[in-house]
Amino acid sequence: MTDDDSTLAKKDNANTLLVSPQDFVCKKPFSFELGGEIPEFKIRYETYGTLNADKSNAILICHALTGDHHVAGKHRPEDKRPGWWDHFIGEGKAVDTRKYFVICSNCLGGCSGSTGPKSVNPATGDPYGIDFPVLTMRDMVRAQKALIDFLGIEKLHAVIGGSMGGMQTLLWAIEYPDAVKNIVAMACTARQNTQAIAFNAVARAAIVQDPNWLGGYYGELEGTGPRTGLAVARMMAHITYLSDFSLTMKTRRDPRIDLPGGRIATSEFLRKITFPIESYLHHQGDKFLDRFDANSYLYITQATDRFNLSEHKSLDQVFADVKARALVIGFSTDWLYPPWQNREIVLALQRAGKNARYAEIEAVSGHDSFLLDSQRLYELTAQFLAGR
Amino acid sequence: MTDDDSTLAKKDNANTLLVSPQDFVCKKPFSFELGGEIPEFKIRYETYGTLNADKSNAILICHALTGDHHVAGKHRPEDKRPGWWDHFIGEGKAVDTRKYFVICSNCLGGCSGSTGPKSVNPATGDPYGIDFPVLTMRDMVRAQKALIDFLGIEKLHAVIGGSMGGMQTLLWAIEYPDAVKNIVAMACTARQNTQAIAFNAVARAAIVQDPNWLGGYYGELEGTGPRTGLAVARMMAHITYLSDFSLTMKTRRDPRIDLPGGRIATSEFLRKITFPIESYLHHQGDKFLDRFDANSYLYITQATDRFNLSEHKSLDQVFADVKARALVIGFSTDWLYPPWQNREIVLALQRAGKNARYAEIEAVSGHDSFLLDSQRLYELTAQFLAGR
Repeated sequence: MTDDDSTLAKKDNANTLLVSPQDFVCKKPFSFELGGEIPEFKIRYETYGTLNADKSNAILICHALTGDHHVAGKHRPEDKRPGWWDHFIGEGKAVDTRKYFVICSNCLGGCSGSTGPKSVNPATGDPYGIDFPVLTMRDMVRAQKALIDFLGIEKLHAVIGGSMGGMQTLLWAIEYPDAVKNIVAMACTARQNTQAIAFNAVARAAIVQDPNWLGGYYGELEGTGPRTGLAVARMMAHITYLSDFSLTMKTRRDPRIDLPGGRIATSEFLRKITFPIESYLHHQGDKFLDRFDANSYLYITQATDRFNLSEHKSLDQVFADVKARALVIGFSTDWLYPPWQNREIVLALQRAGKNARYAEIEAVSGHDSFLLDSQRLYELTAQFLAGR
Repeated sequence: MTDDDSTLAKKDNANTLLVSPQDFVCKKPFSFELGGEIPEFKIRYETYGTLNADKSNAILICHALTGDHHVAGKHRPEDKRPGWWDHFIGEGKAVDTRKYFVICSNCLGGCSGSTGPKSVNPATGDPYGIDFPVLTMRDMVRAQKALIDFLGIEKLHAVIGGSMGGMQTLLWAIEYPDAVKNIVAMACTARQNTQAIAFNAVARAAIVQDPNWLGGYYGELEGTGPRTGLAVARMMAHITYLSDFSLTMKTRRDPRIDLPGGRIATSEFLRKITFPIESYLHHQGDKFLDRFDANSYLYITQATDRFNLSEHKSLDQVFADVKARALVIGFSTDWLYPPWQNREIVLALQRAGKNARYAEIEAVSGHDSFLLDSQRLYELTAQFLAGR
């Protein structure tokens, strides 16, 4: 159901793969876990490397909250930046595309090509907006499974993801025990903690109280929507992804930077952005507006906030039917999903008799450390994928 | 210059002091550290206990970011709640008002009675708004010193404060070495860290981007001003004052609370507040609107963000002239001003040859632990104040 089913990834001169996004369109209705249905859905995805004859070398990558399907390579040689995990995935890299067939899809509910609140509802001809059904992490994973079925893959060699992607990785092992051989979850948690819910709650408050949210029906015209609220939400979330140290390093604080001679007009002073970190965060907020839909942000943060594997039974019981080997990696300065929340997953898997290991990486950059260059992360992942 | 100079604190039947706020009005111009001047200023304060004959038993309490002068006792017997540190200050309490004469004032730039952005500029007849001069922590302390001079007190037995109040406590020891005998700083830092600046930066963005901020000239009519922005700012800041554990305990998360039968109308779902912590934070945001001025929030957060004792020289050098004994108390789960930032102050004081001690209190409630009931805090403080 895509335009081109073949592998589009090609090696360019600079050892960076060239890749084109593809669309999987499922014309069957999709029923959501908490109720509601859509008549059809689309999942945008990219693939890298070549699927082998017995289809045993496929690895699914699950992206984080505001990530997308463009995980590695470039769309055009002249692109300034490659995909968000390009240093981790590619030829000769930790997830070696000479060996593995890598798939990454934009999540259901997202806004980078897969069906979500800004997609047009075929029944009305208007964007779903907040008439899109309530979304859960299980819904996202079920849509990924439909894609994997469509690609004819019965068993994934691995599912890998960090943060929200890690939540999906765990759900793959729980929901589809026969369809996944290995999982690697990073900077993750078995249940969204209250503090993380609280930050998302503030983000949602900023968005829905922006007068331009228009009750959720702002449509999808360029430059409309709750831009102020969404930017504030992103600025705040960005702080939670980093450590105090990495924030400091990003801006090298100098409070005098905007105080020439220590004397400037007061009203000007209060209106302007005073601290380098303030300017940095405003920039992060602004950049985000070009690539993310506010309603998607509401839906996806609610889905992560509702994520709680041990809501109805103990983690040990939840993991009872898991067959996959598991590697869970925590990062020392991650205060969003701290190391102990990652370790807890492995302890429960081990109590349930599973093959699971925990690794902690000393990192200075907080939650987002999983996205950064790390020799230890590369080695841990490559060895685990190789079955060692 | 106040209506009544005598001690107004009286013991009521329930062992809670009755107290009335007083105003110190200084008719002389006040020049601000970074430039600008106001022709006069007012400091609202309260006192508890009795100043002894040689005026040697006075203790100044410095409040935190959004605190005020009403630190203990009640204004009327029927008041539902006493002042914000009533369990810490009073007859027979850690700061024993049978022994000490306690003073607490609303900071310059505040909005609880002292001169700040919402005060009327005598030159124009309108509120200062953002024409109020840029404020620093030193300005606030200098205004406190004017009050203490007015009360005829040459040397304070102690200055005590937590968080922003701790910053002021340190400045008292540095700026007025002969005017303070002991300092107790809690949940404090010698310089605002980048992460804390970042959170305040988001708060300011939420306020100034609220269309009702009106460039800062929203005046002071009831119910006007950037209420949405200020509520969002408060919701976010509230998270930083607590630990994940204490947030959880405040709300006992149950994500299903608003999902009767797991099925409700979608659009209703997304508009409503889904999680208990979300509802709790909205309540905190709303409550704040009744008692705080948005421009004050801008000015005071900027003053804390600019606080950096070691901006121009090392902490050891900054503390060279300090004469006060110092007790600094960190709280184990405080992630806004973590224990190491408190300990650092004491290490520098000790390197400078000062009488300083550090204590760390195991607490579950994060930054705000200093405001909560703690036998250890009471004992540490009482013994230190007694010279032991």
